[in-house]
Amino acid sequence: MRPRLTAKGKQTRTRIVAEAAALMFEHGVAGTTVEDVQRAARVSASQLYHYFKEKKELVLAVVEHQIDEVLEAQQPLLSRLDSFEALQTWCDAIVALQEQRHCRGGCPIGSLASELSELEPEARDGLAAGFARWEARIRAGLQTMRERGKLAPEADPARLALGLLAALQGGLLLTQVRRETPPLRAALDMAMGHIRSFDAIRN
Amino acid sequence: MRPRLTAKGKQTRTRIVAEAAALMFEHGVAGTTVEDVQRAARVSASQLYHYFKEKKELVLAVVEHQIDEVLEAQQPLLSRLDSFEALQTWCDAIVALQEQRHCRGGCPIGSLASELSELEPEARDGLAAGFARWEARIRAGLQTMRERGKLAPEADPARLALGLLAALQGGLLLTQVRRETPPLRAALDMAMGHIRSFDAIRN
Repeated sequence: MRPRLTAKGKQTRTRIVAEAAALMFEHGVAGTTVEDVQRAARVSASQLYHYFKEKKELVLAVVEHQIDEVLEAQQPLLSRLDSFEALQTWCDAIVALQEQRHCRGGCPIGSLASELSELEPEARDGLAAGFARWEARIRAGLQTMRERGKLAPEADPARLALGLLAALQGGLLLTQVRRETPPLRAALDMAMGHIRSFDAIRN
Repeated sequence: MRPRLTAKGKQTRTRIVAEAAALMFEHGVAGTTVEDVQRAARVSASQLYHYFKEKKELVLAVVEHQIDEVLEAQQPLLSRLDSFEALQTWCDAIVALQEQRHCRGGCPIGSLASELSELEPEARDGLAAGFARWEARIRAGLQTMRERGKLAPEADPARLALGLLAALQGGLLLTQVRRETPPLRAALDMAMGHIRSFDAIRN
């Protein structure tokens, strides 16, 4: 167990994790050394060691940080995905964000998942939990839509949410590789087309 | 320009690349050293250097190798994706392969794409070309279906192929993280559901 951190200690820890996350997003986990993080966060080796005994601990903190960042950034839209319009607005916002980033970096969670799944079982557990949280938000909106009679009773919110999240991840990866958003748009349109096929009012 | 390789030289080069690909699939590109490859391929440092002047060259050869391997393994099914049944058989085969692999490793091309896209522009170009080849095979089958009147005229084979490939990539990533195939199945079912919505005969 770690001693409780002071307010200043918490701030320093947060700065270290944020700098590590930014470096790992750009250079990968393997391409980021503890020394790189020290330099970026302006802390000494012993200060860093005070918070993280080894790189693995820092990586696990980065995993949590990136999950929280992605979900918080999307929260205003994610928290009310309870109409076709809201789902479409969320999809459009994700495409717009990639355009803003010039299609660089892919998904901060997906990239960590691809790099760490076979190397760090604990990181994989954390990432699986992060994806589950993301999926649960999408599912909640679809469930509400079904309850309100917007989605047909035979629609399965859990499977639709999982499929939409997968389409998003695959679309982000292909968009990262091709440096253009049509793959992401095609993937999201396909997922939305399938979800719209359960439109209880139109059908 | 490299001197032309003898038959034995080609064999040795092929062995080096195959061993490097296997190591990088398991440990990542960054987690695989040139020395690891030497050991696995049973070659000396100078032998390896004869074929690859630096790790980057070896990585580019691994990219080509993995693209060829994936497309060749799928070729019997990919070459005739010209019916809903054939598309479904192909999807089922991909799910079965993941079950056989205990959902480990993800897509050999997708994993390289995620790890290398921001680090090696040349590798990214190679991976984009590999995805384009894959997509073209899927698109060809869908085009044939449209020509034969199985898919409605308003179906866009290029967008459907891109969406299906993205769903596959995202499904493989989530399946790797969760170590179970339902995410892959949900993603492929969603894509197939969307493609089936253009079924010219049923609709």
